[in-house]
Amino acid sequence: MAPSLVTNILLSSVSHGGNSAFNLMNKPIIAITMGDPAGVGPELALKALAEPSIESICSPVILGDISVLKSVATRLKLPLPATVLGYRQWVDRSVAQPDRPTVVDFNAIQMHDFQPRVVNATTGRASFQYFDAAISAAMDGRVDAIATCPIHKEAINQAGYCFPGHTEILASRVDSQDYCMMLTSETISCGFVTTHVGYHEVPDLLSIDRITKTIQLTHDALCKIRGRAVRLCCCSLNPHGGENGLFGNLEEERLIQPAVDWAREREIVIDGPLPPDTAFLADRRCKTDGYICMYHDQGHIPLKALAFEDAVNITLGLPVLRTSVDHGTACDIAWEGVAGVSSLLEAIRLAARLAD
Amino acid sequence: MAPSLVTNILLSSVSHGGNSAFNLMNKPIIAITMGDPAGVGPELALKALAEPSIESICSPVILGDISVLKSVATRLKLPLPATVLGYRQWVDRSVAQPDRPTVVDFNAIQMHDFQPRVVNATTGRASFQYFDAAISAAMDGRVDAIATCPIHKEAINQAGYCFPGHTEILASRVDSQDYCMMLTSETISCGFVTTHVGYHEVPDLLSIDRITKTIQLTHDALCKIRGRAVRLCCCSLNPHGGENGLFGNLEEERLIQPAVDWAREREIVIDGPLPPDTAFLADRRCKTDGYICMYHDQGHIPLKALAFEDAVNITLGLPVLRTSVDHGTACDIAWEGVAGVSSLLEAIRLAARLAD
Repeated sequence: MAPSLVTNILLSSVSHGGNSAFNLMNKPIIAITMGDPAGVGPELALKALAEPSIESICSPVILGDISVLKSVATRLKLPLPATVLGYRQWVDRSVAQPDRPTVVDFNAIQMHDFQPRVVNATTGRASFQYFDAAISAAMDGRVDAIATCPIHKEAINQAGYCFPGHTEILASRVDSQDYCMMLTSETISCGFVTTHVGYHEVPDLLSIDRITKTIQLTHDALCKIRGRAVRLCCCSLNPHGGENGLFGNLEEERLIQPAVDWAREREIVIDGPLPPDTAFLADRRCKTDGYICMYHDQGHIPLKALAFEDAVNITLGLPVLRTSVDHGTACDIAWEGVAGVSSLLEAIRLAARLAD
Repeated sequence: MAPSLVTNILLSSVSHGGNSAFNLMNKPIIAITMGDPAGVGPELALKALAEPSIESICSPVILGDISVLKSVATRLKLPLPATVLGYRQWVDRSVAQPDRPTVVDFNAIQMHDFQPRVVNATTGRASFQYFDAAISAAMDGRVDAIATCPIHKEAINQAGYCFPGHTEILASRVDSQDYCMMLTSETISCGFVTTHVGYHEVPDLLSIDRITKTIQLTHDALCKIRGRAVRLCCCSLNPHGGENGLFGNLEEERLIQPAVDWAREREIVIDGPLPPDTAFLADRRCKTDGYICMYHDQGHIPLKALAFEDAVNITLGLPVLRTSVDHGTACDIAWEGVAGVSSLLEAIRLAARLAD
């Protein structure tokens, strides 16, 4: 039986329009949230804006703190954007929307409030504030999409915001549970049925509804990203796909196969459910545009092993388009200038392409 | 507190000796079980024996059925070994042990009993019989080690043998639970705390004892294989390592960290517990000789994605040395001559090296 929940899903996050923030240069405005000040976010945001190709495809706006950005710019000899707006100035819609690289200064944290590479409740609170404001800006049309630098989950929890990550904050703000996380790269892309939950919680969270929703959202997003029809591969939950009930609780037969059948009835091209270990073999990867993964590490392990540098995290199904780097705050290497910017560049490019 | 169970583990499977089957040529005798007759096993066994390097390092003995091997040899134009012994002849210790490639004929199945690519109870029973005899031969010293071609779990279950795989059959025959499975290749090696169980069963099967045992066995085997000291990396169970209790039931703090600490006290070099998705990044792989994985797909997914062709499965901790191909019966491509033999060649080479 076809679950009703997803029958008429609109891929709202990638088919957005109407309330556009395109500025005089006819380029989408992308909010780049600075992430946790103690992590790699500040230097990555500046490195991204120093990359000429970014300004050619969008008008980037860093949401963060100018005092932090100045400090990291001095330390690592990185250029600062010439335009700085105060937060209230930016929110005031009578001011023209920026058409050049801009910093919106929240004045949320000072350098004496924290040490680089050491997150705390103050850095967590600031990082939450940037993202929260970015969501508001996307919802009222001041920006077209958000590309996020990493926040630190413990830091935001210490600050009193009980969320495991950006995706869940965004879902809460727009009051929706009909979303999923996707990681995408040229090499491999994965849509996730469950994400930031304990290992043991996964089986109870799987349902035909949730799996069909993930299939539909992943399929529609990848069609838009690739600009063509795509082929999916659905992973099973248990090793060897459960071997017809030898392992597990028949999750493949009860939940995953019906969702795959539902998708096929709607002419979505999808293989599986396949044993997770053979699903990611090179031969299979060649003919697969996107994987449907039952849990976080089922897709994150092969994706990071194969395509760490270029992967982008995108939240599907919500009325705000948001992409993200595929790594954490990396405090062990932060503020040293060695963090690679390619994942953030890909996140900004993908946000600009989907907003376009 | 150090668990007593593994304090004095002998890595019996790789430090074997005494009851050696070395023949007149001073080469180890390796039993190659033919696996399920309907799968890729028969053609792989013949292909392996046609590879000149194999005979230079060991005396291989295929345990299987000559009628099946003749049929696949004719069909795929593969050479047959010149020496064929009946099963009783081979078991009779008064006959000299073979010093050239040999087939031991069990007369367990005829071609009219099955169709290639279609497993059934009869093919399952035959495949079980070959392996069971190989274990007896290893225990009484007629062979030095066993390299197994794939069996089909449903087929052996239909035949009344309720085991999920070779490893469990072997553990049952030698009446031991102190073992673990390891997959090894030049690129990446993994020792497994749990293997062929349902996804939901894993958390309850983890214990400090079981994790320390896996660390010790994997460490000792890799030192022997690499011929030098090795560095391990222990994976956590939950995504992001549980983020200090945000996800999961503190398996990292309660079970994994104490096992890692125990190993370090014994001067085993081991990193972690690390989040599973970052553990397999290229940078980390470069400095890691072996991973300790909490469940089947945690290690099988990256290993098969990165090193499918060359990986060998080895059962550690038992008094019988057994290696295996890292794939199943592959009935979709069996009896067509297209199955790759490199995993079986690696399994035979590893068995010969460890038996030597």
